[in-house]
Amino acid sequence: MYEGAVQDLIDELGRLPGIGPKSAQRIAFHLLQADEVDVKRLVDSLLEVKAKVRFCQTCGNIAQGEQCRICVDPRRDATVICVVEEPKDVVAIERTREFRGRYHVLGGAISPMEGVGPDDLSIAALFARLSDRSVTEVIIATDPNLEGEATATYLVRAMGDIDVRITRLASGLPVGGDLEYADEITLGRAFEGRRLLNA
Amino acid sequence: MYEGAVQDLIDELGRLPGIGPKSAQRIAFHLLQADEVDVKRLVDSLLEVKAKVRFCQTCGNIAQGEQCRICVDPRRDATVICVVEEPKDVVAIERTREFRGRYHVLGGAISPMEGVGPDDLSIAALFARLSDRSVTEVIIATDPNLEGEATATYLVRAMGDIDVRITRLASGLPVGGDLEYADEITLGRAFEGRRLLNA
Repeated sequence: MYEGAVQDLIDELGRLPGIGPKSAQRIAFHLLQADEVDVKRLVDSLLEVKAKVRFCQTCGNIAQGEQCRICVDPRRDATVICVVEEPKDVVAIERTREFRGRYHVLGGAISPMEGVGPDDLSIAALFARLSDRSVTEVIIATDPNLEGEATATYLVRAMGDIDVRITRLASGLPVGGDLEYADEITLGRAFEGRRLLNA
Repeated sequence: MYEGAVQDLIDELGRLPGIGPKSAQRIAFHLLQADEVDVKRLVDSLLEVKAKVRFCQTCGNIAQGEQCRICVDPRRDATVICVVEEPKDVVAIERTREFRGRYHVLGGAISPMEGVGPDDLSIAALFARLSDRSVTEVIIATDPNLEGEATATYLVRAMGDIDVRITRLASGLPVGGDLEYADEITLGRAFEGRRLLNA
């Protein structure tokens, strides 16, 4: 419907996740009317990311170079590995400033529905990191949903004969939330994981 | 929080209309993991649009060249001009295949709230097109909202002494909709504009 170049751009934008045809059209018109330099900056940052950004050869996190910032940082405790699904989970955990160990990014979670099995995840690389026995604790921080739980269960079973402490992040009521708005599964977990206050 | 190049891309994406920080992050990670050729195609279509696409010197619609496809098409009736707010309105009307005249794109609508006055719109260019008296009808197809109505009212008043038929698209119940779900203003308009069936 549009002049060729505009329709091509709308089509390309529409391939991005979460961008429907209406948003693609809106963004295309915005870019059409935007300053040349602004579009140039977007283009440059796209090319820059593809040219420079790789995945860390050790942990699978995003990296500018062979290893990510965390794996090359000698101050990070190499005896504790926190296993997450995606690089964005690393960012979320880093934001808490609670964790000073290293990470391992699986690249997803086990999901029979979406055809993702253990072999599709970076699990062999995780086991390779555990083989020299310097790691004392593996914290499984996959998402608290069906796929994340299945992945956690799989990992615990697969690590059965490795001498390492395996832990899982606590489930429970979100801090600052209202108890009455918690779904029953979360509330159930909160009961299960209740802690003694007067020990 | 992210490695430099990734954060830069997230920032650039976040400047696009309708893209919040979460979507920007999701798109950035998608592009990070996408094939080089796919990202190249997106980049090329961005550059292509900025290099090739202009606004039609006659009507303000998007164009690859000095004039848009419709203004250069001799089969389009040059005696009827349909006035719209944005190039995307042209596409919407073209889709109906009901209109065989030409367009005039104002580039927006009068909105005191957003500081858009008549001088910010392509109104002088519209009057220039009417000056040789070859145009017999101006169809005002601005949006049926506050700004679009204000713009229509302004145009009707400004064209007061020009000898041309001025019409406005009908407001009424959307075809295929349910009467009970129509808002009262639309329903009111539908009554006002009711047509005699047994004339």
